[in-house]
Amino acid sequence: MDIVKFVKLSLGRWRSQRSAHHLAFAHFEAVTSTIDIVALAQDNPEVVNLCQSYQIDPKLAISPFRMSWEGESDWDEQEVLKGTTVLVPIPDSNTPNKGCLLRDQGYAETIPAVGNYTITEDGTFILQTQYDRATAEEKIWFATPNLRLRVSLIKTSEGTGVVTASFSSEIRSLKG
Amino acid sequence: MDIVKFVKLSLGRWRSQRSAHHLAFAHFEAVTSTIDIVALAQDNPEVVNLCQSYQIDPKLAISPFRMSWEGESDWDEQEVLKGTTVLVPIPDSNTPNKGCLLRDQGYAETIPAVGNYTITEDGTFILQTQYDRATAEEKIWFATPNLRLRVSLIKTSEGTGVVTASFSSEIRSLKG
Repeated sequence: MDIVKFVKLSLGRWRSQRSAHHLAFAHFEAVTSTIDIVALAQDNPEVVNLCQSYQIDPKLAISPFRMSWEGESDWDEQEVLKGTTVLVPIPDSNTPNKGCLLRDQGYAETIPAVGNYTITEDGTFILQTQYDRATAEEKIWFATPNLRLRVSLIKTSEGTGVVTASFSSEIRSLKG
Repeated sequence: MDIVKFVKLSLGRWRSQRSAHHLAFAHFEAVTSTIDIVALAQDNPEVVNLCQSYQIDPKLAISPFRMSWEGESDWDEQEVLKGTTVLVPIPDSNTPNKGCLLRDQGYAETIPAVGNYTITEDGTFILQTQYDRATAEEKIWFATPNLRLRVSLIKTSEGTGVVTASFSSEIRSLKG
C-alpha cells in the first residue's frame, strides 16, 4: 500500500458514523455525516498555493485531494458540522511509505496544518499532526474496499494525555 | 511486544466506553462497563481443563488470564451485560508473535472458541475468531500504558460483509 493507492481507495462518497468518547467525563457523542473525497490535479491552483505557502515545490505533490463533510452531532443538534479542506501528500523521497500531509484547514483547529504520515505494512495510514494546543493522531484502514475505519485521538499538546478518542466507520455510497 | 508483555500490560481494572455501530441501519449503541483482567497460574484447573478440551498440552499455555465484565447498554437499559471468561494464549513454537487463543466463552456467541492472534510490529494485537455463524476480528492496542483501545468487527461467517463495527476506549482504574 502506498499513498497513491490509499488515496485512490478513498475517493468517492462515504456515509460516516462517528462516535467520540470524551474520556474525562465518559461522554459519548454520535455524529452522522456524509464525506466526499475528490481527486485534484497537481496543478490545481489551491494545491499549488498550499505547497507554496509551505515553500514546497508543487511538483512534489502526489495524489492531492479535497475532502468535504456535512453532518450532525447528537451533542448539539442545532449545529450543522460542515467543512471542506484540501489535502496534499508530499512523500519522502527515500521512504515512500512516509511523508507529510499538508492541509489548508485542520480538524481540531481551523488553521492550516502539516501532519506526518506513515503507511504500515498491513495498510494502515497513520497520521500525526501537531497543533498549537493539541496533538492529533489518526489511524485509517480499510476493513473491506467499501468500509473505511478511522480511529482519532486528540492529545494534549505535550502528547501525554488523551482527551478524546473517536471512531468512524465509513461506508461507501458512491464510487469515486 | 510479545504475548507475555501484552497480557501483563492488560492486567488490572479498566473503565470501558464502547460504541457499537450497527452498520445496516446506522444505529449507535453506547455501552459503559468495568472490565477486570486477572492473571491465572498455568496449573489453574480451569486453564488445564480448557487446554485438555482442545487436546493441547497445558504446558504450552503462556500468560493465561481471566476477563470479567459488567456493564450496561443504552440500547436495552433493562439488561445488565455481565460475564467472565478464561483466555489461554498458545504461542506458535516457531513464530512467537503468532498463536492461538483459547477461551471458554466467546463474545459473539456464548460457546467456547479458538481464535488466531498476531502481534504486529507496532504492538497491535490482532485476533480472528471463527464462529458458526459469524467471524470476529479484533484489534487491541495501547495508546498509553493506561489507555487501551479496541476495534471489533463482526462479519458474516463468509467473512465478507461487516455487520457491526465497535470501538472501546478502556481507561485503567486499578493496576493489575
